[in-house]
Amino acid sequence: MRATVMYGSGDVRIEHVPDAHIIKPTDALVTITRACICGSDLWPYQQMKPSEIGNRMGHEFIGIVEAVGTEVRRVKPGDLVVAPFAWSDGTCIFCQGGLHTSCLHGGFWGGTELDGGQGEAVRVPQADGTLVVLPVGPDHALMPSLLTLSDVMGTGHHAALAAKVAPGKTVAVVGDGAVGLCGVIAARRLGAEQIILLGRHPDRIALGRDFGATDIVSERGEAAIERVRALTGGLGAHSVLECVGHGEATRTALSIARAGGAVGRVGVPQDATMPAAMSTFFRNITIAGGPAPVRAYIEELLPDVIEGRIEPGRVFDRTITLDGVPDGYRAMNDREAIKVMIRF
Amino acid sequence: MRATVMYGSGDVRIEHVPDAHIIKPTDALVTITRACICGSDLWPYQQMKPSEIGNRMGHEFIGIVEAVGTEVRRVKPGDLVVAPFAWSDGTCIFCQGGLHTSCLHGGFWGGTELDGGQGEAVRVPQADGTLVVLPVGPDHALMPSLLTLSDVMGTGHHAALAAKVAPGKTVAVVGDGAVGLCGVIAARRLGAEQIILLGRHPDRIALGRDFGATDIVSERGEAAIERVRALTGGLGAHSVLECVGHGEATRTALSIARAGGAVGRVGVPQDATMPAAMSTFFRNITIAGGPAPVRAYIEELLPDVIEGRIEPGRVFDRTITLDGVPDGYRAMNDREAIKVMIRF
Repeated sequence: MRATVMYGSGDVRIEHVPDAHIIKPTDALVTITRACICGSDLWPYQQMKPSEIGNRMGHEFIGIVEAVGTEVRRVKPGDLVVAPFAWSDGTCIFCQGGLHTSCLHGGFWGGTELDGGQGEAVRVPQADGTLVVLPVGPDHALMPSLLTLSDVMGTGHHAALAAKVAPGKTVAVVGDGAVGLCGVIAARRLGAEQIILLGRHPDRIALGRDFGATDIVSERGEAAIERVRALTGGLGAHSVLECVGHGEATRTALSIARAGGAVGRVGVPQDATMPAAMSTFFRNITIAGGPAPVRAYIEELLPDVIEGRIEPGRVFDRTITLDGVPDGYRAMNDREAIKVMIRF
Repeated sequence: MRATVMYGSGDVRIEHVPDAHIIKPTDALVTITRACICGSDLWPYQQMKPSEIGNRMGHEFIGIVEAVGTEVRRVKPGDLVVAPFAWSDGTCIFCQGGLHTSCLHGGFWGGTELDGGQGEAVRVPQADGTLVVLPVGPDHALMPSLLTLSDVMGTGHHAALAAKVAPGKTVAVVGDGAVGLCGVIAARRLGAEQIILLGRHPDRIALGRDFGATDIVSERGEAAIERVRALTGGLGAHSVLECVGHGEATRTALSIARAGGAVGRVGVPQDATMPAAMSTFFRNITIAGGPAPVRAYIEELLPDVIEGRIEPGRVFDRTITLDGVPDGYRAMNDREAIKVMIRF
């Protein structure tokens, strides 16, 4: 079969790899129908050291179950399924508590050991815990929005929950990438009154406004902080969604939270330490978040997607085939595309 | 009147200062009957640069109202009152939300502008919002426990709330000072099942066991982390109370929280950055806490003190008069005393 392999910064190739197949009785074999490139894939695209064996890529996909292991009970061949960006057993103490990204028997797609979503097929470990059957056919118009349940919509929702978004709250979203835009959707869905989107790209800002952003802040650093304060009566936001991960974004997020407020971080941190340890302490800021247990959120978000109340699939502004993946990485890295969907 | 003034590291003097008196119509004048030295007073005791004017010290006290300004309604001369370590108006948006330490018209005792608790009398700004009338006489046997409502008991309670302590949870308390010991009381009061106290001083550990600690960890650094993991089935604690504030304690606290757990920090941070930004992210750790809004907690904790269900006053293991304050600082700094009470 063919799949995406990254060999180093900027070096993404489509190659023939061993066919995915069932190894364990809890596995399923899934043929991919839709996948995509994630903002977090750009960190290795920018930073990965050259590797001879390379890393299989992709952690967001929808596909059709081709076969299942002898112990799989919940999914069956022919099912159209969506996979979260982490696989999990659904039964361990962490899964039971809704934190599937810390599953004791779970893990993440791709790398050197497992198939990734940016390929023709995937062996899915812990298939019963991981996969969610979709109630539509594989070419339904809602595919883009359903695909966001793999990661970005659930991640935006996680940021909003971690930041304690609730009806009437003032929310700031740091970052206008696909996750930040889904954070805007999540904040509105949870009843936020004011939603301030911090971003600088006109196309993304326009989409953010459509999704529910009430104010846009395009300044950076201190100027951005001052602007958010001015928009919030000098107090800052109750809830801040940090959807970037690098130091300046984190510093901004921590600075624009009002005393007693909360910052939900879902951008993968790029620094070993967190800034503003003292100022967040003196203002009693809560810092929460991490890799989103999107598996926990799919059932909750699915009806809103199916019934059209939210349209997170609008973050996809380019559709390619597998051969177009290397250029898809380039386009996202150059900020030509917000998020790229791969159609098989 | 006489009061405590700190002129630099190790330089604490008892001096004649201008008599406290009412300045604003919202003030009260309070004659101190009990006060104490705080673990947080030891940070300047160890680090303060020499000053010619000095800082008035003390932020925990009980006293008798001598006079009130024309706008004061809730307290009256003759009342025995306890003061939180921050004064607050009780009416602003933050006080209404229970975060009195961020009061828009509040502040902190002592320094160069205001009276401190370690003196004969105090001008209390925002008296109606700040002071709580006690339902006992000034020499009641419960004075030590009532005095802890000024700070350490409310601070331990804040740490426990920030760390999401709840019935059945596993809790770790980092630090065996007065706040850590009150954190043990708070954790038990909120229904924790297992309470692991990290500390090394035999007298404090004994008191911690009396207060409800089920396990003691006296190792430090990596060894402490390993020991807590072993005591928690390899998972770490649901709730961690950080009651120290320096880098190693913070690192330990963040490391012993289980995935999805919470760290409540009340030790005043001594570093500008927080460690483990990545590992706390990948484990979805919530970091919360800050200066405790003890004013918000006094009414809740007072009945438990009055009815003897909790005895936080046992953290006082030495009682002195005002002249003994310089030696009281030394004794606490040398770990000869857990916490020193000043009797006037």
